[in-house]
Amino acid sequence: MRDEHPPRLSVLRLGHRRDRDKRITSHLGLTARAFGADEVILSGDDDSSALETWRSVTERFGGDFNARYEPKPLSWLRKLSNAKEATIVHLTMYGEPWEGAIGKIPSKSPVVIVVGGTKVPPEVFQISDLNVSVGNQPHSEVAALAVFLNSLVGPLEEFSKFSGAQIRVKPSPRNKLVISDQEE
Amino acid sequence: MRDEHPPRLSVLRLGHRRDRDKRITSHLGLTARAFGADEVILSGDDDSSALETWRSVTERFGGDFNARYEPKPLSWLRKLSNAKEATIVHLTMYGEPWEGAIGKIPSKSPVVIVVGGTKVPPEVFQISDLNVSVGNQPHSEVAALAVFLNSLVGPLEEFSKFSGAQIRVKPSPRNKLVISDQEE
Repeated sequence: MRDEHPPRLSVLRLGHRRDRDKRITSHLGLTARAFGADEVILSGDDDSSALETWRSVTERFGGDFNARYEPKPLSWLRKLSNAKEATIVHLTMYGEPWEGAIGKIPSKSPVVIVVGGTKVPPEVFQISDLNVSVGNQPHSEVAALAVFLNSLVGPLEEFSKFSGAQIRVKPSPRNKLVISDQEE
Repeated sequence: MRDEHPPRLSVLRLGHRRDRDKRITSHLGLTARAFGADEVILSGDDDSSALETWRSVTERFGGDFNARYEPKPLSWLRKLSNAKEATIVHLTMYGEPWEGAIGKIPSKSPVVIVVGGTKVPPEVFQISDLNVSVGNQPHSEVAALAVFLNSLVGPLEEFSKFSGAQIRVKPSPRNKLVISDQEE
């Protein structure tokens, strides 16, 4: 579990393809937000519809989640790495087991979680401080990110993390309960 | 954590749409397999490509994972519910928090985890023994299933659960290591 005021936590989506990855990438960014990341960074195709989805959900459901596009993700990672400005964690089915890897992530500095598409450049394995797997079976980058963030960040105090919401869901064993803030 | 020889654990995908949900549904089934479910049941569009993906991964990466299509998912759930043959757990962002709900699931009887698409029939909330949320923010059914199964099933002994594999990934902090069984 990270500090109460943790350093910046970013998720970088590599190699997005507008058509093929549309919904997976959309779910990936929403998962980043819901499980406590501060921002999602899109790379690959510059797809404004993904950015719009993330911003629209943030506007309605609250919080300070940021979404942007990065045209040169490898240069950006190299710069971060050279300056030792962040711990770079690459999620991959080939990496070391996440349960052990999480303890190696310094809690006082920013973290960038790199999530690949189909073909991750080999350099990413070298730039990253940690190559981490959530199981070594093929499944989903969305699944891996969720389980990893859930362990790294710990349970969220939803109403504090997602302040300023227009809409809130109230947990219920049997019904759909939605609370709207009618501030106009 | 469930018993060493736990009762059957199934994941039912509701309302699959062949085009729009193709990759999300594919990832959902692979996540079910990787996190310890025994079978995935597809409903909505009868999409052989999803079933083929799941079977092909199972053939190559091992284990006894089953994949099938169910044309009448609500009838099937009603029958299970009336016969009290399984605990039906519906994952939804409107449900009660998963951390507390997991303790209410009997460990000795089969479990069916129902995962919705966009429009879940209201009856599903009533048929289900538990309506469970993994956070009450919008994210992804793939993320929710992964975190939920990871808590319900606990860490998998990969090499025993996924026996008979043609291909295995060996965890590594820096490289892609794949072991092929050359039995021909």
